[in-house]
Amino acid sequence: MKSIKSAGVIGAGVIGSGWIARFLLNGIDVYVYDPSTEAPANVDKVVKNAERSYKKLLRSDLPKKGTLSFSSSVSEVARSAKLIIEAVPERLSAKQSVYDEIESSSNSEVIIASSTSGILPSDLQAQMSHPDRLLVAHPFNPVYLLPLVEMVGGEKTSKKAIEETSNILSVIGMFPLHIKKEIPAFIADRLLESVWREALWLVNDNVATTEEIDDAIRYGFGLRWAQMGLFETYRLAGGDAGMRHFISQFGPCLEWPWTHLTDVPEFTDELIDKVSNQSDLQSGQYSIDELMQKRDDNLVDFLKVLKNNRWGAGNILKDFDERLSNPKSKIEFSKLDLNQPLLTFETKIPKEWVDYNGHMTESRYLECFSEATTEMMAIVGADEDYISSIGSYFTVETHIRHLDEVLIGEKIYSKTQVIFGENKKLHLFHWLYHESDRLLATAEHMLIHVDLNTRAASLPNDDVLKRMSMVYEAHKELPKPDGLNRAVGDKF
Amino acid sequence: MKSIKSAGVIGAGVIGSGWIARFLLNGIDVYVYDPSTEAPANVDKVVKNAERSYKKLLRSDLPKKGTLSFSSSVSEVARSAKLIIEAVPERLSAKQSVYDEIESSSNSEVIIASSTSGILPSDLQAQMSHPDRLLVAHPFNPVYLLPLVEMVGGEKTSKKAIEETSNILSVIGMFPLHIKKEIPAFIADRLLESVWREALWLVNDNVATTEEIDDAIRYGFGLRWAQMGLFETYRLAGGDAGMRHFISQFGPCLEWPWTHLTDVPEFTDELIDKVSNQSDLQSGQYSIDELMQKRDDNLVDFLKVLKNNRWGAGNILKDFDERLSNPKSKIEFSKLDLNQPLLTFETKIPKEWVDYNGHMTESRYLECFSEATTEMMAIVGADEDYISSIGSYFTVETHIRHLDEVLIGEKIYSKTQVIFGENKKLHLFHWLYHESDRLLATAEHMLIHVDLNTRAASLPNDDVLKRMSMVYEAHKELPKPDGLNRAVGDKF
Repeated sequence: MKSIKSAGVIGAGVIGSGWIARFLLNGIDVYVYDPSTEAPANVDKVVKNAERSYKKLLRSDLPKKGTLSFSSSVSEVARSAKLIIEAVPERLSAKQSVYDEIESSSNSEVIIASSTSGILPSDLQAQMSHPDRLLVAHPFNPVYLLPLVEMVGGEKTSKKAIEETSNILSVIGMFPLHIKKEIPAFIADRLLESVWREALWLVNDNVATTEEIDDAIRYGFGLRWAQMGLFETYRLAGGDAGMRHFISQFGPCLEWPWTHLTDVPEFTDELIDKVSNQSDLQSGQYSIDELMQKRDDNLVDFLKVLKNNRWGAGNILKDFDERLSNPKSKIEFSKLDLNQPLLTFETKIPKEWVDYNGHMTESRYLECFSEATTEMMAIVGADEDYISSIGSYFTVETHIRHLDEVLIGEKIYSKTQVIFGENKKLHLFHWLYHESDRLLATAEHMLIHVDLNTRAASLPNDDVLKRMSMVYEAHKELPKPDGLNRAVGDKF
Repeated sequence: MKSIKSAGVIGAGVIGSGWIARFLLNGIDVYVYDPSTEAPANVDKVVKNAERSYKKLLRSDLPKKGTLSFSSSVSEVARSAKLIIEAVPERLSAKQSVYDEIESSSNSEVIIASSTSGILPSDLQAQMSHPDRLLVAHPFNPVYLLPLVEMVGGEKTSKKAIEETSNILSVIGMFPLHIKKEIPAFIADRLLESVWREALWLVNDNVATTEEIDDAIRYGFGLRWAQMGLFETYRLAGGDAGMRHFISQFGPCLEWPWTHLTDVPEFTDELIDKVSNQSDLQSGQYSIDELMQKRDDNLVDFLKVLKNNRWGAGNILKDFDERLSNPKSKIEFSKLDLNQPLLTFETKIPKEWVDYNGHMTESRYLECFSEATTEMMAIVGADEDYISSIGSYFTVETHIRHLDEVLIGEKIYSKTQVIFGENKKLHLFHWLYHESDRLLATAEHMLIHVDLNTRAASLPNDDVLKRMSMVYEAHKELPKPDGLNRAVGDKF
């Protein structure tokens, strides 16, 4: 995996800003050129949206945000970065003049990745002195959330340029799909345009409004495509006989409607008005900002669902998140300092854990303490393997003191003292702290070791008994925690 | 809203079985005719899949499942139900002979809804004696999960038939989309076929494999379409200027690739082989059953996400779920029997609440008790309105005893006794029971009333104080709960 320290972006529209946000939040410095005076404000808005989404999307902390610099020219950008994203309007001449300026002010090692959604890389690179470094990396809006990026080389693009760029983009959570054959509009926009054409006909011929068409998508096959795409979905429609059955059975009957509407509706003012007005009726009650936040919220949650279900785009997110996290190295018991309470749990408070005020809800405090107990068990050897084969500690009694509030996105950690730990019994005391060391809550638990087959109380195995006793022997020399052995309502 | 007691289904393939499952789980008796000897086993499998999904999808209990009867003929079905779904293969003559048989053995009131994905209802009804009762109700696989159903009338279809069927289908959680103009393949399949044609070209021309095409969909625009469809998504791409800007800016540049690939690839054995083999490579490591369960799991979670975010298909689910639930009538305080602990919480344990063993996890016990506290507050008048304008009770201390385990799908309820309730202080004791009255856990809470603006302790308003005191005065005459005032580890 290859990561970079800086990137250049030429053109800070919707797509350029999305690239900028993805780079910055991955700790990459970004040099931007866009002649529009509105560019900095637009970029700022997109970066804020991206931050808002990433906070909810990722369990890991992001690296320190990269630095954003607006340059005064394409040449300045070209001198500052080894990878330059070109995201200027879809005119071949405009793009070629950007490449010209880059080539005249940087060495031939700088890779140029065009965000074009349709122009052939062979055409883009036609006039370049070092055409091997030009490729298409076509992302999808919002670039900071959708993993797909189509990678297309032209006749003269080097394999190295494609590979290096793919590596760089993988590291920042994208899915580079290398398209082997260069055709106009690549793959996704081919499919999108075919639907777009058909949809415009439906509106043009008054068969359906824009809203009805969107409903036909999002209440139906859109929900399938978000997870499986077209072919895998149809494989299922074929039943147990799979794709061969589907295509043999439904192929011929699909042929018949194929003969319709494959020419292009004329792009009249009337059609433009019709589509715009229907779209206003459909979505006009929301501002574009509101729609974008709603879209991002849904995307974040879809991606999290898929991550949880280990499927499709969720696997990309999982890899990304794991690469970001700095996994706590497996604790070596012998290296622990047992003469103080043990560090047992750390997290950043996710969206799902808070109430409408942004405060962590009551039951999540117990979830934190439950995680702390799990870690304490793992420390003495009652880890996942042990639990699946031998037994576990079950909580029989809990006492919690709520001392302070904590907000979404804040970091917390717990410490744990073993009050008693012999035979089947385990008596724990946890403290939950804000990262500033402000005490948020304490919990006291009584646990009993249980054989998971008989579900009856049982002794832990010797290793666990031995380690537990070592911790207990050390911890019983520590001061008794404030709040121990309290009943609810005892005087302080 | 109109609901029915029974429905008929002719043809129990993938689509017919999906209809059967949706009807049965909505408490509707279903009469089925399918000549295949495998039909009962196939239906059974689909119904089981649907049950598995609904258990996770819905908070409410479903009504008592309908009865499934396999009939020996179309006529028998026609005599048993007022709504008949026709889901036989896509041949006009096959469908027409089914209608013939229905008409010759039932009165003219019986509605016939065809699941055809492309044939015009005017053609379907051409030879009928009572063509007004024939319409298309085109659903999407899996019928038990996807809300969309396209409603299309023919020239002779009565408005009444469309309206009644739409009402019936709304009640069982579907989204009937009435298509005003009859065209072959309606809306969704028009769009699907345009993509299908384009995708087959891409495979045919070796531009991409089936897997690459699916990835281009599900890592990119598929995630957008599941929530917004096509036009609303493009509205966002236009930035603040919206759809008019988008269509003016991108219309012309999209016109250019439109001129490609609009004819139909020849349906040769070679193309069939290519698609089938690529699909095997892509998805062959999963059985069709595994893929279906994965698909349903993802769909369930997407629909829940959208419900939570109050968006699109989630709104349909929300209405469906609320219609199913038997909402607890708003409690009238004056009618409560205060001389016993109060019933405060009831639920069925959802998937998210259990560990890998299917047992409710530790922290969810506190979530139940937290709900019980919320209900107790609502009983004395500290309800949602009160909380948003005046104040709330914050938990400062909790003691839980875990006494027994409980499994996914089981029903539980809680009772609550007020131990102390005056001034700013509220001391509660909850019992959590399995529906069989087996005691699962108890919780004791100390709460303090807090002003939500200053976030400092404060007195409740007079109404809440008065009601709380009435409950407290009555409850202090009750026996002290077993386990009250315990500290963790006290001897029993």
